[in-house]
Amino acid sequence: MFVQHTSASLVIQENADPAVLRDLSRFMAELVPESRPWEHDDEGPDDMPAHVRSVLTKTSEAIPITGGKLALGIWQGLYLWEHRAAPHTRRLVVHVAGE
Amino acid sequence: MFVQHTSASLVIQENADPAVLRDLSRFMAELVPESRPWEHDDEGPDDMPAHVRSVLTKTSEAIPITGGKLALGIWQGLYLWEHRAAPHTRRLVVHVAGE
Amino acid sequence: MFVQHTSASLVIQENADPAVLRDLSRFMAELVPESRPWEHDDEGPDDMPAHVRSVLTKTSEAIPITGGKLALGIWQGLYLWEHRAAPHTRRLVVHVAGE
Repeated sequence: MFVQHTSASLVIQENADPAVLRDLSRFMAELVPESRPWEHDDEGPDDMPAHVRSVLTKTSEAIPITGGKLALGIWQGLYLWEHRAAPHTRRLVVHVAGE
Repeated sequence: MFVQHTSASLVIQENADPAVLRDLSRFMAELVPESRPWEHDDEGPDDMPAHVRSVLTKTSEAIPITGGKLALGIWQGLYLWEHRAAPHTRRLVVHVAGE
Repeated sequence: MFVQHTSASLVIQENADPAVLRDLSRFMAELVPESRPWEHDDEGPDDMPAHVRSVLTKTSEAIPITGGKLALGIWQGLYLWEHRAAPHTRRLVVHVAGE
């Protein structure tokens, strides 16, 4: 799975307790804050933080397939993580390989 | 190589000096501390930090094979990184593709 | 694409404004500073920070191919990120799969 953007990313994380996603968002907002004096701010204060958050996570995730199904662990889910403040339309490329 | 968990991850790092792994552990323990007020703490104070550390590293690593061997660099080794405080049994999926 | 080193990494990021790369470098230099008391410093103060920066980014990037071309997004470029202070010669392995 490949995301064709540099301000959104993919992440495999727990699919049960939504508090995990909230904690992740809060941690990332603090680690890569909008308040930093970013040089690149063409699209606003959330522009460059989104690029950094994308670098610290993943542009692609490779998931094995066994028995015709994604071989995810019981607690794993695949998320598209939007790093910009406003909603954006995002394009993914799904590549399936094998016999 | 794919790890079926969200609180352990894979990382390719130096396979020579064990001090590298100790430095990595100390850095990560400070960057994502247990002492933060995490909302998700069902399994204790090391629960949510393990998820964040997993997000900042990798759930899978793809390694090319040449001449029947992993084409790792001389100093590269593949590690399973346990992010929880106590030992856990972990499941990996190894997918080998090609002719 | 696979980089055979543990102190350089790959990253897919914006290919337009060079300020993005400068902001990324400054952020990473501050997040993983040379000034930290690193145990592993065999090759100088930039040795261990390079390993950590490598862990927080990627050793490999998988990019789908469609119509004989890399299916990168319009703004995406693939970079080799040198994390050491001095220039190094780096080896990459390119693995192309499919029919």
